[in-house]
Amino acid sequence: MKEKLTVIKVGGKIVEEEATLQKLLDDFATIEGYKVLVHGGGRSATRLAAQLGIESRMVNGRRITDAETLKVVTMVYGGLVNKNIVAGLQARGVNALGLTGADMNVIRSVKRPVKEVDYGFVGDVKQADGSLLGDLIRKGIVPVMAPLTHDGEGHLLNTNADTIAGETAKALAALFDVTLVFCFEKRGVLRDENDDDSVIPCINEAEFQQLVADGTIQGGMIPKLENAFQAINAGVSQVVITLASAIGQTDEGSRIVKA
Amino acid sequence: MKEKLTVIKVGGKIVEEEATLQKLLDDFATIEGYKVLVHGGGRSATRLAAQLGIESRMVNGRRITDAETLKVVTMVYGGLVNKNIVAGLQARGVNALGLTGADMNVIRSVKRPVKEVDYGFVGDVKQADGSLLGDLIRKGIVPVMAPLTHDGEGHLLNTNADTIAGETAKALAALFDVTLVFCFEKRGVLRDENDDDSVIPCINEAEFQQLVADGTIQGGMIPKLENAFQAINAGVSQVVITLASAIGQTDEGSRIVKA
Repeated sequence: MKEKLTVIKVGGKIVEEEATLQKLLDDFATIEGYKVLVHGGGRSATRLAAQLGIESRMVNGRRITDAETLKVVTMVYGGLVNKNIVAGLQARGVNALGLTGADMNVIRSVKRPVKEVDYGFVGDVKQADGSLLGDLIRKGIVPVMAPLTHDGEGHLLNTNADTIAGETAKALAALFDVTLVFCFEKRGVLRDENDDDSVIPCINEAEFQQLVADGTIQGGMIPKLENAFQAINAGVSQVVITLASAIGQTDEGSRIVKA
Repeated sequence: MKEKLTVIKVGGKIVEEEATLQKLLDDFATIEGYKVLVHGGGRSATRLAAQLGIESRMVNGRRITDAETLKVVTMVYGGLVNKNIVAGLQARGVNALGLTGADMNVIRSVKRPVKEVDYGFVGDVKQADGSLLGDLIRKGIVPVMAPLTHDGEGHLLNTNADTIAGETAKALAALFDVTLVFCFEKRGVLRDENDDDSVIPCINEAEFQQLVADGTIQGGMIPKLENAFQAINAGVSQVVITLASAIGQTDEGSRIVKA
């Protein structure tokens, strides 16, 4: 029987405010067993870009990443946010290791082809390798993953953090019994976005398609759920979408289930 | 007999200009056997600080690191410079892993005590651990180390890159036959700083003290050589100070020898 491993994805908002970050690190440190943390950092990137006079342009919730913006996200995701999380976890006795997809060639991607939109230096994941990561995890190391990958030709690429979480979970599913938890500011997938008590406890793919079709699920929740279904279909044992403060409590939130 | 490992330290100037960086990465990729790269990044930090309206204050060649400056160096050293080197090495078939001292708790330091000068968030190294690093290196991983450490209490600390190189070399000397190479813009330790042909080929500690006393060696070269002597006295097999373009050629430059 495979050992349990939890991959926690937390959005930018949680890791970018000191109080919520400290609470997150406290909660994450108490999760038992093997674990991985995947983080965003978009708000800090937008703030730094503004300070440097670089306009942040978003299309469908994704950042248009020109050369200057790539520098900003490399500094913020790979440096500021990632290394502060690592130092904060070390202080809590968690032997964290901050990584981008370029480090140890963990996640390789291709620059997104230009169609209606030129996203610039944005990566679509091609390959994630869990073997070295798995060795380190078994030695007690806790990977902390920034939303950056590389193309194997010397370029870093800005990559969606939900995708990083999904790909990491899938790559580790061959080695561990993986639970993937997407934490954000809502209690789960809501039937009514204005009613926090309308959490849908279980969703299968047919129901998801129906909820998209009738407009219940929209915006950034769609790619998040697509990542979730890809993961559950690729060997990840459990996928949960939940409130960040309920981290590690897999009986909360919305559970993604196979058909 | 221990296997050979080379620790290369390169200064900020070399890694911050595109042409010299690409040349460095080409040269570094050709070094045979186990290896580690340690980099600076001060010029980029100064530039970003200026763009953000933060004044860079240096005392004895060391950056006064207040809270805002710490954010800048975390972004530049841990993110921009480190991750671009990692991606560049991956493109050359080198399986690089970017690290700060906080990652895997590799280098722990203490905030420098305030004496005549308050350096702020600057770390003096307390402990470097080569064991996990050694395991990774034997698996073909090439660590790329940024000049940042942590205090174990959640704070990152700005740390001199020569010190990082020296401490890493010393920590790995128990496991490998280590050569430490400090690369910079001169051909070695010069007897006359205006004469590039005046390289001193061999220096022992008594000669070093004499050269400092008579004013031949001064400024930033003094702590660099102090790091070099600490390393050679702590089990590092060879220490060389040389031109960056002579990387890997240990018959060039100035060789540091035991008394």
